[in-house]
Amino acid sequence: MKRIGLVVAYDGTNYCGWQTQPNGITVQGVLNDTLSELLGEKIETIGASRTDAGVHALGNVAVFDTNTRIPGEKISYALNQRLPEDIRIQMSEEVELDFHPRYCDSEKTYEYRILNRKFPVPTERLYSYFYHYKLDVDKMREATSYLIGRHDFASFCGSGAQVKTTIRTVTGIEVFREGDMVTIRVSGTGFLYNMVRIISGTLIEIGNGQYPPERMQKILDAKDRSAAGPTAPAQGLTLMGIQFFD
Amino acid sequence: MKRIGLVVAYDGTNYCGWQTQPNGITVQGVLNDTLSELLGEKIETIGASRTDAGVHALGNVAVFDTNTRIPGEKISYALNQRLPEDIRIQMSEEVELDFHPRYCDSEKTYEYRILNRKFPVPTERLYSYFYHYKLDVDKMREATSYLIGRHDFASFCGSGAQVKTTIRTVTGIEVFREGDMVTIRVSGTGFLYNMVRIISGTLIEIGNGQYPPERMQKILDAKDRSAAGPTAPAQGLTLMGIQFFD
Repeated sequence: MKRIGLVVAYDGTNYCGWQTQPNGITVQGVLNDTLSELLGEKIETIGASRTDAGVHALGNVAVFDTNTRIPGEKISYALNQRLPEDIRIQMSEEVELDFHPRYCDSEKTYEYRILNRKFPVPTERLYSYFYHYKLDVDKMREATSYLIGRHDFASFCGSGAQVKTTIRTVTGIEVFREGDMVTIRVSGTGFLYNMVRIISGTLIEIGNGQYPPERMQKILDAKDRSAAGPTAPAQGLTLMGIQFFD
Repeated sequence: MKRIGLVVAYDGTNYCGWQTQPNGITVQGVLNDTLSELLGEKIETIGASRTDAGVHALGNVAVFDTNTRIPGEKISYALNQRLPEDIRIQMSEEVELDFHPRYCDSEKTYEYRILNRKFPVPTERLYSYFYHYKLDVDKMREATSYLIGRHDFASFCGSGAQVKTTIRTVTGIEVFREGDMVTIRVSGTGFLYNMVRIISGTLIEIGNGQYPPERMQKILDAKDRSAAGPTAPAQGLTLMGIQFFD
């Protein structure tokens, strides 16, 4: 028996998120079925991040146990030949048998992309959120300074989540514009349900001038979801990668 | 009666190209139908570039004649409310009655995007050509120097095209890499059928080391399609914009 780790990229457009569910096609479901077929045994993957419907990934991480003789690093090639085009394994390797991608110290990096111009661009519609009103990136950047570090992010936690604590550590946030595309890049050691999308929705309300950057501190202090801005739409979000520490 | 000019962006993935045809959905067909419904009269657009199936556009140009009282610059908004999400008008305005987007002096700019890395990225699959072997951008750039200017591009003309002359003028070609993405940007006052895709396919054969940059001159001199490289796939190509001169 060995444990294999995968780095998984996917276009979330056509999936009901990562996690297997009884109704609807999920990335994990397709991965489990394809691996089971390839290896001739029942495979159950465990994902590091259970991304929501419509959210994309360049570097989600999953592990599974297998008795196969195929070397770990070859599994990516065999798997990519069988997977649909919107899921692509970037790397596979054998990992320690006790490596668990959710109970390990790690840092995740997400990017939220906002297409900020007069009219939408069709070729960007599936991978960004179109926003018409001009965003002031300097104000957004100023607002992010309140979020960096260890805080109670209760105001940025989507409803329906059951967690022991809403304290999380954001290790970095960058906001930058390249042409018409404004990107919010957030790194942290853990995230609450919808946290990056609520941070993004709140930063948009600051970037458009509706609220000043200092409001971010008041929103944090409120510890109340209703204090923050809306949850920005799923298609703008991509899980860029996960770094693990031992 | 007035003539309206449109700047049209589209995701070509789900269309059988620009031009109306009896079988299959085309960008022009959808545009004609949507305009006819909006304006209550039979509208026939004329496009500047009849892009192929799967090719994208940020700035194709079309004109049509109408008796509507809607001001030219408002038509974009009304039209975008009725068009599918993969077609978006970027601008509309009244133009001279004798303006014809194909019989006017103009310069078109295309970009061909090549994702050059070990494994494909699902979110790029519809808008770039995945190519595994490492491309040498310096060699590709050297090869483009032979193409700039007025030449007989018969070697870069797709079969099935009926044209009086295969002489065309390429005003500029840039090749650049941003991370894993190699972009070939070609501008010219006119293009032959599949010309940018054949140039791109040929540049890939030079970038991968199969042929030296100087071969480009021999290919031009041959005036024979079989001397050049393959036609690179449609999804990598985007018509970026068209500039008109009077």
